[in-house]
Amino acid sequence: MTAYATLTAAQLQQEYDVVTAAFEAAKAKNLKLDMSRGKPGKAQLDLVSDILTVLSTPEDCVADGMDVRNYGELAGVPACRALFAEILGCKPSEVFAGGNASLNLMYDVISKAFTHGLLHSERPWCKEDVVKFLCPSPGYDRHFKVTESFGMELITIPMTEEGPDMDAVEAAVKDPAVKGIWCVPKYSNPQGITYSDAVIDRLAALKPAAPDFTIMWDNAYCIHEFDGDFVPFRDILTVCREAGNPDMVFEFASTSKVTLPGAGVAVFATSEANMAYMQKLLTVQVISYDKVNQLRHVRYLKDKAHTLELMKKHAAIMKPKFDAVVDMLDREIAPLGIGSWCRPKGGYFVSYDAMPGTAKRALALCKEAGVVMTGAGATYPYGKDPQDSNIRIAPSLPPVAELEAAMEVFCVCVRMAALEKLMGK
Amino acid sequence: MTAYATLTAAQLQQEYDVVTAAFEAAKAKNLKLDMSRGKPGKAQLDLVSDILTVLSTPEDCVADGMDVRNYGELAGVPACRALFAEILGCKPSEVFAGGNASLNLMYDVISKAFTHGLLHSERPWCKEDVVKFLCPSPGYDRHFKVTESFGMELITIPMTEEGPDMDAVEAAVKDPAVKGIWCVPKYSNPQGITYSDAVIDRLAALKPAAPDFTIMWDNAYCIHEFDGDFVPFRDILTVCREAGNPDMVFEFASTSKVTLPGAGVAVFATSEANMAYMQKLLTVQVISYDKVNQLRHVRYLKDKAHTLELMKKHAAIMKPKFDAVVDMLDREIAPLGIGSWCRPKGGYFVSYDAMPGTAKRALALCKEAGVVMTGAGATYPYGKDPQDSNIRIAPSLPPVAELEAAMEVFCVCVRMAALEKLMGK
Repeated sequence: MTAYATLTAAQLQQEYDVVTAAFEAAKAKNLKLDMSRGKPGKAQLDLVSDILTVLSTPEDCVADGMDVRNYGELAGVPACRALFAEILGCKPSEVFAGGNASLNLMYDVISKAFTHGLLHSERPWCKEDVVKFLCPSPGYDRHFKVTESFGMELITIPMTEEGPDMDAVEAAVKDPAVKGIWCVPKYSNPQGITYSDAVIDRLAALKPAAPDFTIMWDNAYCIHEFDGDFVPFRDILTVCREAGNPDMVFEFASTSKVTLPGAGVAVFATSEANMAYMQKLLTVQVISYDKVNQLRHVRYLKDKAHTLELMKKHAAIMKPKFDAVVDMLDREIAPLGIGSWCRPKGGYFVSYDAMPGTAKRALALCKEAGVVMTGAGATYPYGKDPQDSNIRIAPSLPPVAELEAAMEVFCVCVRMAALEKLMGK
Repeated sequence: MTAYATLTAAQLQQEYDVVTAAFEAAKAKNLKLDMSRGKPGKAQLDLVSDILTVLSTPEDCVADGMDVRNYGELAGVPACRALFAEILGCKPSEVFAGGNASLNLMYDVISKAFTHGLLHSERPWCKEDVVKFLCPSPGYDRHFKVTESFGMELITIPMTEEGPDMDAVEAAVKDPAVKGIWCVPKYSNPQGITYSDAVIDRLAALKPAAPDFTIMWDNAYCIHEFDGDFVPFRDILTVCREAGNPDMVFEFASTSKVTLPGAGVAVFATSEANMAYMQKLLTVQVISYDKVNQLRHVRYLKDKAHTLELMKKHAAIMKPKFDAVVDMLDREIAPLGIGSWCRPKGGYFVSYDAMPGTAKRALALCKEAGVVMTGAGATYPYGKDPQDSNIRIAPSLPPVAELEAAMEVFCVCVRMAALEKLMGK
């Protein structure tokens, strides 16, 4: 195997013939494989079956002197708030325990900013001429889509190896129309990057022109190491408070990838001042979230140490899948010099940067051969990757054997797309 | 006991002395009783304990070929949509199964109308100069509050014995700023009125000036008879479709008062065109709701017939409570001619109309004597009852003995407030 850049025209053609034959062979297998979303696999779901029956009697449903089966307690079961506070490193009074989806809580914060304004807003965002939102990219398509759906202007911020390019962020927040930034600070989606202390300090110390500038801190993978021990991470609420910006951040987390993706518990954490403000708005929307499920999680997960033990079991299932993906890229693609990636230690994704201008084509080929991936461009605002290069690989759902089959197809397709590009096809 | 209106000044004073002594005696008991919200009582929650363990293994969590533990299926578990469709009399494709709170689904519809507009909106409601909403009153405070929180102008529509005053509604919808109406069509909150066929027909046949006028049809008590058999009720989607207004209604229902108030399943039902439109907006907000809990409900409730059997058990607990309330009013208040009420056959409330100008005072006295009721005025827009007369009594939570103690205090307080009024105090 030789780097494609060094091949002659004849060698390129020869390689193209080989790759095309491999592609046709793959197609003939009529595969139906899915690496499109960060869904846990069945073995992970089976790990936590005991949560289904952990509450089985009326007496089980009493906690903190409260019958969780009935209405009430908007901010959630106190023991559940305390559990997440321990995991995130903040205070229970700073945690709001909601329903099953942290995305929904994020949407609620943005939606309320739009309709009512946040604590320090001069007016609801719907009354602003223009609202801009910072999107470190590559990033999470569903984040970008939330702000896009409210007509906000999405501003791409490049990602560096230690988080968002803070020079770009600091320059951008001088514009009072810039109202916030999306962050996945630990094992970022899709690159698996953990923000450095320096980046976190600069984020917390921002002096934005907008008084209601908000960091949307999606700590989705806060305890989701699959390679090595739990890595402690700073509490962003404390960092912001110490930097003189106590109300500048909403943090989000959930058990979607701890217990059950469809039936977990999601929370936001924020300053007590923000909490009081948000509760005044949220009490109009809902009497209380599903506290029975919150209590199920408390009884099942117990505390942070016990939860981390469970995460080790998830890791044992996840690591071979990530190894399969990255090992194959190292073996099949590295020598060809047509792509780059990193080997994350946590989170749910591998980020692959294809030869510029070939990502869309490579994924169209994958689809033709029965392998579904997250759409090319999805990791950039408006679904448009200016380099047409970044591809998000989600190894968690398929069993290893299927994953290897899918990755073989993927490697063939990125090679084929690269060759077409080099050959001017 | 003699009607207060016929008493002389001296007799009023004599009665006032008696009632004041009774009030002081009540206060001395240091009661702490709550009739403020329509919360089911513990006996009702205990009825459904088997739902906690109805799903106990991974295999139990597969339905319609789908593993409900994982992400996906925005509109909910098909079997759950089918169950609600059977109960409501519509098609499964017209049902969206969400989280635990129908209030949250109502809020989402209004919020999306405000931020994005509904299917037939010319623009999002936040871009309208003024938005008005019709509030049949007395009605449900949380409904009114949702629209109030978005700055809409609330218009009071009088309730008649067969539903909202349709002459008033038909006149009001000629104003293009009038965008919708709140309805609790069966066993209305708080009066327990079921809309007549004539009212329903006129509602469905409205020709509002606003193309996006929406009936918010909160069928909260669709199967909640506590006195007598289930009373069939027309499917509002069909009625609207047949009247040429297929997209004019969103219906809401939940199992909050069927299984567990804090952990039930809520749905909305609407035309397929509305459904497609709403799903495009909702998919930005959430990947999927708690399908495990949806499936729990399907397995536990089975079908409409089986659900109605469960409702009979709820009825057996509820009826003595309503009887205790209404019997006491019949005995203690009726002869005095200072209030009126009706005897509902379903729902969660008794509506009491006190002598005009005395509701606030009566409830302040109740509070002083340790009995908490829904605030006076709550059943009217902005919490302001122009007559200061309507009081919502919620008998469901306290056991009968407590309820009787609370109603004794209530009767003393409404008498005292009436006497003060008559005596010009």
